[in-house]
Amino acid sequence: MALLERHVSDGIARIVMNAPARLNALSNDMLAELNDALNDIAESDARVVILSGVGKAFCAGHDLKEMQAGRQAEDKGAAYFASLFDRCATMMKLVQSIPQPVIAQVHGVAVAAGCQLVATCDLAVAAEGTRFGVNGVNIGLFCSTPMVALTRNVPRKAAFEMLTTGRLIGTSEAKDIGLINRAVPAEDLEAETTALARTIADKLPSAVRHGKRAFYEQAQMTTEDAYAFAGDVMVANMLDRDTDEGITAFLEKRKPDWA
Amino acid sequence: MALLERHVSDGIARIVMNAPARLNALSNDMLAELNDALNDIAESDARVVILSGVGKAFCAGHDLKEMQAGRQAEDKGAAYFASLFDRCATMMKLVQSIPQPVIAQVHGVAVAAGCQLVATCDLAVAAEGTRFGVNGVNIGLFCSTPMVALTRNVPRKAAFEMLTTGRLIGTSEAKDIGLINRAVPAEDLEAETTALARTIADKLPSAVRHGKRAFYEQAQMTTEDAYAFAGDVMVANMLDRDTDEGITAFLEKRKPDWA
Amino acid sequence: MALLERHVSDGIARIVMNAPARLNALSNDMLAELNDALNDIAESDARVVILSGVGKAFCAGHDLKEMQAGRQAEDKGAAYFASLFDRCATMMKLVQSIPQPVIAQVHGVAVAAGCQLVATCDLAVAAEGTRFGVNGVNIGLFCSTPMVALTRNVPRKAAFEMLTTGRLIGTSEAKDIGLINRAVPAEDLEAETTALARTIADKLPSAVRHGKRAFYEQAQMTTEDAYAFAGDVMVANMLDRDTDEGITAFLEKRKPDWA
Repeated sequence: MALLERHVSDGIARIVMNAPARLNALSNDMLAELNDALNDIAESDARVVILSGVGKAFCAGHDLKEMQAGRQAEDKGAAYFASLFDRCATMMKLVQSIPQPVIAQVHGVAVAAGCQLVATCDLAVAAEGTRFGVNGVNIGLFCSTPMVALTRNVPRKAAFEMLTTGRLIGTSEAKDIGLINRAVPAEDLEAETTALARTIADKLPSAVRHGKRAFYEQAQMTTEDAYAFAGDVMVANMLDRDTDEGITAFLEKRKPDWA
Repeated sequence: MALLERHVSDGIARIVMNAPARLNALSNDMLAELNDALNDIAESDARVVILSGVGKAFCAGHDLKEMQAGRQAEDKGAAYFASLFDRCATMMKLVQSIPQPVIAQVHGVAVAAGCQLVATCDLAVAAEGTRFGVNGVNIGLFCSTPMVALTRNVPRKAAFEMLTTGRLIGTSEAKDIGLINRAVPAEDLEAETTALARTIADKLPSAVRHGKRAFYEQAQMTTEDAYAFAGDVMVANMLDRDTDEGITAFLEKRKPDWA
Repeated sequence: MALLERHVSDGIARIVMNAPARLNALSNDMLAELNDALNDIAESDARVVILSGVGKAFCAGHDLKEMQAGRQAEDKGAAYFASLFDRCATMMKLVQSIPQPVIAQVHGVAVAAGCQLVATCDLAVAAEGTRFGVNGVNIGLFCSTPMVALTRNVPRKAAFEMLTTGRLIGTSEAKDIGLINRAVPAEDLEAETTALARTIADKLPSAVRHGKRAFYEQAQMTTEDAYAFAGDVMVANMLDRDTDEGITAFLEKRKPDWA
């Protein structure tokens, strides 16, 4: 049984974490496979990605047994830990830098780096009853890297509380603070996530790609620079043949004839 | 009938977009008139500005017919589109850089660059039932420039969803994510917006001007730099004769005698 | 009777502002004492801090009488005001730079620099009925320095409205916009705040210290830089002896034996 299942159907790529016995922990192998899957999708004509997990949890974070084994090295694991957190951050950044929107389909538990993964995905739909947390502090390891993603999604005091208390929150609170887009009944999770993916997959792919790339880049600029940059993106978008057709079709009140 | 109506009364300047047949689209002419109006107000003694629109919509974004006509040029419109998005961004930045607070009085529909205009205004009051969206993606043109304003107002995942799905949201959701300050019954929209404008117009104008300028500047600084900058603004504010009077009057429990 | 009461018990340091007749105004003396207290705590083995106030208000901001007296100087107070806002900002920054989380225990009124203090604390618990505002604009002094803290906690339009209207908000609204973590019945305020402090004090102190320092630093970085920085923090955290023990204990399903 593969650690990661991958499917593509009608423009929707699915990545399914499949290590239920380890609550889909982000082990070295899982990180490598996620990295490969995201890189492959980036080069493919998939239009949108759904990331989910098999078993009781979406993802419970790093693989603690594997991490502890790293301490046997002469440097007590320093080089290994640095490499691990670097590879994990590389994978997280890849989620945001591939051209396709990535939707987290979340259930059960999403904690520590698993919560970071939810925060990192462009969109997130969760089953009611899912619990979220950055609870590493409970075992003496503050969730410093998950914090990078969390604090770019949720208000400051909510993030600080989650990080220092290790408290798990439910879907209602996760929605209120902006960690997820919506919560749905567990039995509707796959259908609702797929419907959201379908909506995006039916847009003009080049427009979505222009937009996703610009989304994260402009967010880090001054307003002045962001407008200069986004203006260039809009011009490039306008010069696409399919955008011309899309606007013309709208003005003529007909469906666009996209390539 | 003018494309833009302008009134001033008791310190409140009103700008009314008046192209109902085109849903107050931000055509070349509309952008030029908004630019002129904002520049004039910046030099005036108006204390606050209300921006509204006539007809079914507050503003439906760019003028698509006019944009498509730009494609006839030898460069297929590249230079024209660059100029258009630049002029639009200049107008948006002007809303935030004039010394007076600008309140959007929103009804009907505010989509694409019309939604950007709501996000850009310092404050926004909307009629219940108003719909908001950055739905350019539906016709193949991702709302990249509106995104600059939107992402500086609302949480990341909410913004990403609006941009990639093109879904319109109502006033309740718009309020929840911070796109508007409040929603009121349609019949109260003008009165409520005017009351908010009145509240601000009755403050000491120099204090409001100090503050609005500082608001956007400090937001782009590190906390360290922001405090140094804001400290200077506070000192300048303290040295105003009218601020001395305002504080003295407060301590003496009487109304200030402002110039 | 001291201007500031200080207690430490079971790892929880309490700072109590004790100038009820002046609504715990941030006078020169109060700022100096807060500064001293925070610096002392930074060097101590306290694990968490609770900041509260005696009397009708948590804190009503600057001491206006003292400020007005500063105008007698030859420069009309310019140097004094610059010094005052600098000392106030230094104290606010200290709240965030000491290694221990600081919880505001808020009741009554928290306005102007008092509201800034709430926004600045890492966490805030408020008694139901507490009112918050940045209302300096009502007396002609825009809350420019409080704005620095406020705008780093709450959405843009909510902040702008509070700053330009001077309107006070209640605990429900304060919670919705992210200014406080939660509101509790007045009679439970101390117990609930203490329980939150206790939760944090029971974590591994070195992990909390690693995390708090990283929290504010990474927030000002690009995502790329933030991940590089947070990765280093995680490695240092992993190399703590107590973190090794914490993770091992978790894997062995027992309580950690922390130093």
